[in-house]
Amino acid sequence: MRDVHFDIESLHAAYRGGVGVAAVIATIYARIETTDDPGIFIHLTARADLLAAAEALDPFDPVAKPLWGIPFAVKDNIDVAGMPTTAACAEYTYWPDRDATVVARLKAAGALVVGKTNLDQFATGLVGVRTPWPIPRNAIDPELVPGGSSSGSAVATARGIVSFALGTDTAGSGRIPAGLNNIVGLKPTVGAVSTAGVVPACRTLDCVSVFALTVDDAYRVFSVAAARDAADAYSRNVAVQPLAARPPVLSVGIPAKADLKFFGDAAMQAGFEDSLAMLSRLGCRLVEIPFGNFYATADLLYEGAWVAERYAAIRDFMEANEAAVHPVTRKIIGGARKLSAADAFRGLYALQAYRARLAPVIASVDLFCVPTAPTHYTTAAVLADPVETNSRLGTYTNFVNLLDMCGIAVPTGARDDGLPMSVTLLAAAGVDGLVASVARDLHAASGLTLGATGWRQPSAQPVGVSAEDGTIELVVVGAHLSGMPLNGQLKEAGARFCRAMRTASSYKLYELAGQAMPKPGLVRVGNGGTAIEVEVWRLPAAAFGHFVAAVPPPLGIGSIELDDGSTAKGFLVESVGLLGASDISSFGGWRRFLSDRAPA
Amino acid sequence: MRDVHFDIESLHAAYRGGVGVAAVIATIYARIETTDDPGIFIHLTARADLLAAAEALDPFDPVAKPLWGIPFAVKDNIDVAGMPTTAACAEYTYWPDRDATVVARLKAAGALVVGKTNLDQFATGLVGVRTPWPIPRNAIDPELVPGGSSSGSAVATARGIVSFALGTDTAGSGRIPAGLNNIVGLKPTVGAVSTAGVVPACRTLDCVSVFALTVDDAYRVFSVAAARDAADAYSRNVAVQPLAARPPVLSVGIPAKADLKFFGDAAMQAGFEDSLAMLSRLGCRLVEIPFGNFYATADLLYEGAWVAERYAAIRDFMEANEAAVHPVTRKIIGGARKLSAADAFRGLYALQAYRARLAPVIASVDLFCVPTAPTHYTTAAVLADPVETNSRLGTYTNFVNLLDMCGIAVPTGARDDGLPMSVTLLAAAGVDGLVASVARDLHAASGLTLGATGWRQPSAQPVGVSAEDGTIELVVVGAHLSGMPLNGQLKEAGARFCRAMRTASSYKLYELAGQAMPKPGLVRVGNGGTAIEVEVWRLPAAAFGHFVAAVPPPLGIGSIELDDGSTAKGFLVESVGLLGASDISSFGGWRRFLSDRAPA
Repeated sequence: MRDVHFDIESLHAAYRGGVGVAAVIATIYARIETTDDPGIFIHLTARADLLAAAEALDPFDPVAKPLWGIPFAVKDNIDVAGMPTTAACAEYTYWPDRDATVVARLKAAGALVVGKTNLDQFATGLVGVRTPWPIPRNAIDPELVPGGSSSGSAVATARGIVSFALGTDTAGSGRIPAGLNNIVGLKPTVGAVSTAGVVPACRTLDCVSVFALTVDDAYRVFSVAAARDAADAYSRNVAVQPLAARPPVLSVGIPAKADLKFFGDAAMQAGFEDSLAMLSRLGCRLVEIPFGNFYATADLLYEGAWVAERYAAIRDFMEANEAAVHPVTRKIIGGARKLSAADAFRGLYALQAYRARLAPVIASVDLFCVPTAPTHYTTAAVLADPVETNSRLGTYTNFVNLLDMCGIAVPTGARDDGLPMSVTLLAAAGVDGLVASVARDLHAASGLTLGATGWRQPSAQPVGVSAEDGTIELVVVGAHLSGMPLNGQLKEAGARFCRAMRTASSYKLYELAGQAMPKPGLVRVGNGGTAIEVEVWRLPAAAFGHFVAAVPPPLGIGSIELDDGSTAKGFLVESVGLLGASDISSFGGWRRFLSDRAPA
Repeated sequence: MRDVHFDIESLHAAYRGGVGVAAVIATIYARIETTDDPGIFIHLTARADLLAAAEALDPFDPVAKPLWGIPFAVKDNIDVAGMPTTAACAEYTYWPDRDATVVARLKAAGALVVGKTNLDQFATGLVGVRTPWPIPRNAIDPELVPGGSSSGSAVATARGIVSFALGTDTAGSGRIPAGLNNIVGLKPTVGAVSTAGVVPACRTLDCVSVFALTVDDAYRVFSVAAARDAADAYSRNVAVQPLAARPPVLSVGIPAKADLKFFGDAAMQAGFEDSLAMLSRLGCRLVEIPFGNFYATADLLYEGAWVAERYAAIRDFMEANEAAVHPVTRKIIGGARKLSAADAFRGLYALQAYRARLAPVIASVDLFCVPTAPTHYTTAAVLADPVETNSRLGTYTNFVNLLDMCGIAVPTGARDDGLPMSVTLLAAAGVDGLVASVARDLHAASGLTLGATGWRQPSAQPVGVSAEDGTIELVVVGAHLSGMPLNGQLKEAGARFCRAMRTASSYKLYELAGQAMPKPGLVRVGNGGTAIEVEVWRLPAAAFGHFVAAVPPPLGIGSIELDDGSTAKGFLVESVGLLGASDISSFGGWRRFLSDRAPA
């Protein structure tokens, strides 16, 4: 029983196989004991209370309750009714009478709160050592900092004490500890998950984040957690797409070589290069991007206006209890006292200028890949130089929320010294599903075990595509295929890749004559047809409408029969358009035709 | 010559009729002389320079240059190359070497800058008296304040000295002076018109606004002015729809009776009620909306963070030149010195809370109608109590940009004492076209003359149904023709009938074999084709998308060439679907085929 794996798929399989929740709960407390790290939890749920919560669940039903019986930990700046919220400052403690919205949603989906976890006080820090509680031990190497600010949540997950844990992430607090503990850290689009019931750090930037052992788990929790919430004025409607297949060819922005920073950590540099090679093998086209403006954006975070948000969040408390605040935290946040309102607006203007300048850069690729952290630090090194080491850890995280990007830290395990290697995939707001789908492939390719547990990754489940969202499938056969010249039109229209497949064996493919660029024509024939390689994409109805309206003759949109017997809309050509066209059906598809035909 | 009307339609008609630009320019200076108001302009273009600019125009071509030869004035916080920018503070003066983006766009469209106009210093005020230059006189009643801060621009327009004028509008500066001078004031969606080259008031809220004699003129200028501008970080892509016919029935939110404020001005109250009656007669359904949260939002503007934006904009100047700042302005803006950065963020949080709370309220109606100003003040009254009177004037304007709404002030002339009556129509960001279309009808219904000129409104031009409104044309040939069995599908999808016509003479029409109900197939052929009768309908893009998605094989949607040489999307049939089909082209169309064929 003690060795049941806590990734959600394995744990649900165990429940399905007859394992009881009480046994799982016994395992949780046994693991806490074995781990023997007094720094992880600030408040632990009493065993009797956890049993009572589990017994109150309806019978096992992972469809109605996608997190049925799943244990999780909550960073102690997020309210759980009936437990103290400390934000890692004992004098700040209050007892909320209701759950934070995100906690309530996860409980409603069947998840069980195991306890409240340690953090860099007031979520200010990326190191995990700025706490009056014991410092949580890095789950992979106890000499290293656990990372922060969501230190306890990351370690609890990496140790397999819980299936997942909530963190918060304003400047990297949900990504750095994931990267340092060999687990996944999903930092959603700002506003996708409600922050109602969360102690603010920077209210305009704060995100609730998810630590998990696998990308599938993190994304499942995110899917349950995300919803517009009237109780959070910064909440936004972010459409959570099901975790779906990703386009086979993607462009991935990476920091230009000269702009990479590893502060002398050659193993991290080599590990990052190896991670990029993995991405390339997964069909990603790497594009070097100058990173100066990203770093300049990051510098805004602790130089100016946003420190004042942290101060605004605890001003009354800090003025009355200065000595209760951690010395490093006090120095950082206290710096805001001398900032004027005009200074705050100057900071906001500077950010807006970077946002405007970087928007086209961010839009120029499908996603970005950066190291999660530039290097590892020992706890001793951080205690010796608490501000500079912390600042360096944020190299690749600080700019993300300022630029309204989403991201996910994922282990790639590629360091030659055995320390955790992690990259973070980033993209524009709302593209959480795409970065997760790539992270999923990257994690699978790494072959890593999970966190510090030694558990193998569960075998990858096929991802489905939902047809119930009002979008319309489009079969593309030529220049709109992924990686082809017109594929950008689909992406701009908000299309999502569904799958690559073939038509039924009743088509012929032609290269049309007299076109400005090579263009195929697909024609259904009575007999003598072939199966042709196509891709299926999904478009919002209006975008589909505009797309159809823009299709030039002799092409049109009709019904295409696919080799699985289904039918979808796709490109057809008028027979009059075949004048002078060459039958290229024998190539089996446009991509093969372009690559294999003899050069002219 | 002196009596040529300066609304754009009349002036272009004059040009078309042979009037020369030199004569028009002479009229401008003659009107300035007649008006004899030294407060309107801070800087006037030299007559020779204006003539030179006019002579540099290509020949009259109002299509290529929609503002060809149209004189306009520019508020003196907007840069015009070669003229000083003062913001109504002599010590602040600088000489920009390039036009503000908006000025450059208008010049490129053929418009001529007549001069720079007076304002409440640094655009802080709604009264028009906070200036070291002479106070511009209200064009309708010289005892009254002209309104501000765009005082000179409004009076210049109302006097017919220019066809239109640029203002700025952060808290009402583009609407109040319009309302007090019997002209139109268009306040676009924040970010629609670039503020590059504009002296900031509150950079997060500032708009460039348009004063004009008619709604058509204001909207035409807005259409030229609006564009995304990389030089303005707050610039947004706002789609400017052509001013089109509006839906016949609209819901209009109005302040609940108990929430209306007129400060004892019974004539304004009665005038507002009469204006609402006009709206009702135009087919608008009035909906009373509690206005407490709108007023509470407005209170934020001068109580907290946003005063700090005004201070941030001129901090360096003000610290070095305190005495140069107008005493009232100095007191207001100087108040920001004691505001901390944390205060600024608290203000931003409070606004975000109101935005979240009011978003569904704003979305619950098509648009809002409020009084432009709650009352009129004499210049003497304002000088006696400069802050309170100013604050009252902003009752219905201060909240608008904070809530990211667009608006247009339009005269309704319904006060029984003959003073100007104006209402402002408001809506969510991006709905500029709809509010303008309703304002247009309201102005026409008022029968008012223009500004202080006594000129009649030009006869309303019919507004066309634009092809640019996001709908898509669909050519139908069979069961979707009007009166046929499937025509109801089109109507349910919101389709509108456009016209009946014929295809080009290159098609054949077939009756398909093996169909449950008689069904035609249209095929383009290389030669031997016929013109086939069809109907053209228009569908919203999403409906078009769903319609295409539902077309069963062997039919599809492609491009159909029509007999007027145009092309539209329409039904085509795959050639494989013609197996066993009968060529019925000789009937010339499906309707004739059904009626003429011999009964079986």
